[in-house]
Amino acid sequence: MAVEPNAKKRKSDDNKHSTEILSFAGFDFCKVLKNDLRSKTAFIHSQFEGKDAVILMEKTAFDANSVQEMLTEKTELVETLKNDVYSTYKTFPDKTLNGMKTTLIYPATKQHIAKYSEQEFHIVQESGKDYKKVTLPYVKNKALSNQWVYNILNKETEADRIVFEDTCPDSGFILLPDMKWDRKDMDALYLQALVHRRDILSLRDLDQSHLPLLKNILEKGLSAIKEKYGIPANKVRSYLHYQPSYYHLHVHFAHIKLDNPGFEADRAHLLTDVIENIEMKSLYYKEKTMVFKVREDDHLYKAFLEHGCIQK
Amino acid sequence: MAVEPNAKKRKSDDNKHSTEILSFAGFDFCKVLKNDLRSKTAFIHSQFEGKDAVILMEKTAFDANSVQEMLTEKTELVETLKNDVYSTYKTFPDKTLNGMKTTLIYPATKQHIAKYSEQEFHIVQESGKDYKKVTLPYVKNKALSNQWVYNILNKETEADRIVFEDTCPDSGFILLPDMKWDRKDMDALYLQALVHRRDILSLRDLDQSHLPLLKNILEKGLSAIKEKYGIPANKVRSYLHYQPSYYHLHVHFAHIKLDNPGFEADRAHLLTDVIENIEMKSLYYKEKTMVFKVREDDHLYKAFLEHGCIQK
Repeated sequence: MAVEPNAKKRKSDDNKHSTEILSFAGFDFCKVLKNDLRSKTAFIHSQFEGKDAVILMEKTAFDANSVQEMLTEKTELVETLKNDVYSTYKTFPDKTLNGMKTTLIYPATKQHIAKYSEQEFHIVQESGKDYKKVTLPYVKNKALSNQWVYNILNKETEADRIVFEDTCPDSGFILLPDMKWDRKDMDALYLQALVHRRDILSLRDLDQSHLPLLKNILEKGLSAIKEKYGIPANKVRSYLHYQPSYYHLHVHFAHIKLDNPGFEADRAHLLTDVIENIEMKSLYYKEKTMVFKVREDDHLYKAFLEHGCIQK
Repeated sequence: MAVEPNAKKRKSDDNKHSTEILSFAGFDFCKVLKNDLRSKTAFIHSQFEGKDAVILMEKTAFDANSVQEMLTEKTELVETLKNDVYSTYKTFPDKTLNGMKTTLIYPATKQHIAKYSEQEFHIVQESGKDYKKVTLPYVKNKALSNQWVYNILNKETEADRIVFEDTCPDSGFILLPDMKWDRKDMDALYLQALVHRRDILSLRDLDQSHLPLLKNILEKGLSAIKEKYGIPANKVRSYLHYQPSYYHLHVHFAHIKLDNPGFEADRAHLLTDVIENIEMKSLYYKEKTMVFKVREDDHLYKAFLEHGCIQK
């Protein structure tokens, strides 16, 4: 631990805790940077011994055991509403059953603080012309390196994680679990297919010449997932992001039960829709107005403003 | 309170609680019906005095005050990981600061238990032919009555909630806040536009003859929101659902910050995309394969199975 609140360190007298118990003694509260109401997570700017700290406090999901232990006379209830068969209560379970999770960043840089601060978002409407004038130069100059993708494609890293590979240089791809998936909970199944071709930046580049590639990923990706994990195609969402988080064509495969923030209608494009739209019109994705959400501090947003393609 | 755990009722000796303190004494645990990991809510089947109860236990979001009070020596931390400047802790705040919310349904019916039980979902690919053969007859026979919509359009109910109206019988609509929005938190802004025409069931019916209607809703809806609430167009998502929850054409307007479960890529269709697609091809939405998610106990899903349009 980078920070040692010595004054309050003590051995636990509670057998639920097998290790030393620390506390927030010595931390000075500065500001709530962001409060995510849906995920029940607070991002806090704090200081310890004069240096910045970022504290992420997150309410944790229930597990079957703790639920059962909470359903006893030890849990205190205070009625707040009653109507017919429905009633609501403020509820105070035993402290040890109601743990949260804290992530501490200490010492924290200004970048850490910015990263976890509430951000303004804007909707951008990107025409085909805007793409060529603003987005493409941005991608070529500013986007992060794809070296980590090439390391995977070259089997230099993560070779043991590969679920399926089609080695064809034109329509081939590598399928592997997304870092966010623990590979245990099948309801949270999440994989990515990385294409072997290195000349396709994103959805914007796709036309009818890529239909064999796209159909190959859809068909073999879904069948590999069925074979390896037993999850059938009608439980798996396959989609591309625009804007993507990196500019090397890739397809996401996620379980229908995974409540994934990356599946919003202004970011995710279903692979079956992409194929159908290109079959209808080869230049569909080169000409379409693409709608997406950007953070105000995103360089791409600033580029759109500078070119006068959007207004503040 | 429908249920009276008398044995454990007692006056609070803690001045944080101004009212009687109840508890879960007497409740027998039966089963976790559903455990929502993202919203941190558990749905529990229980029994009290031999009758069924459904208990919804929900972790609550942080508020600025409780965050500050938690950041003291009273909050116990147990280290679980440390790497460079990052470390994580199991965290046990004072019980009174870490309340949850319980909703009790008692006595609960079988329908209550089914409603809160984990459901299997399936992805359905609905072709234009499937729509005519399966979905349209289902909508005409089985869908819920639209009487509540007509009551609004006739100003028989909710007339005081109308934010904007264009009375044109062809391209007019009524804009009003969605029931889910409290009309106070602007980041959660959520309205619906109901068209005056009663002959358009959904997105599937739209073609180029409806472009003036769609463009009118987009333009006047966004400008009414700007005028009434001060929220500019680049912060507002406008979209249609397919399948919709009721079959009378309507458009959703939601703030970009609203983390809305109804904005998934296999349900929400951006109004600007709909207009552009129809401009490109009048019959786009009559011919397109529409992808959507259905619950296994949904009558529409059963109709697709019966017609052999999908496999179990």
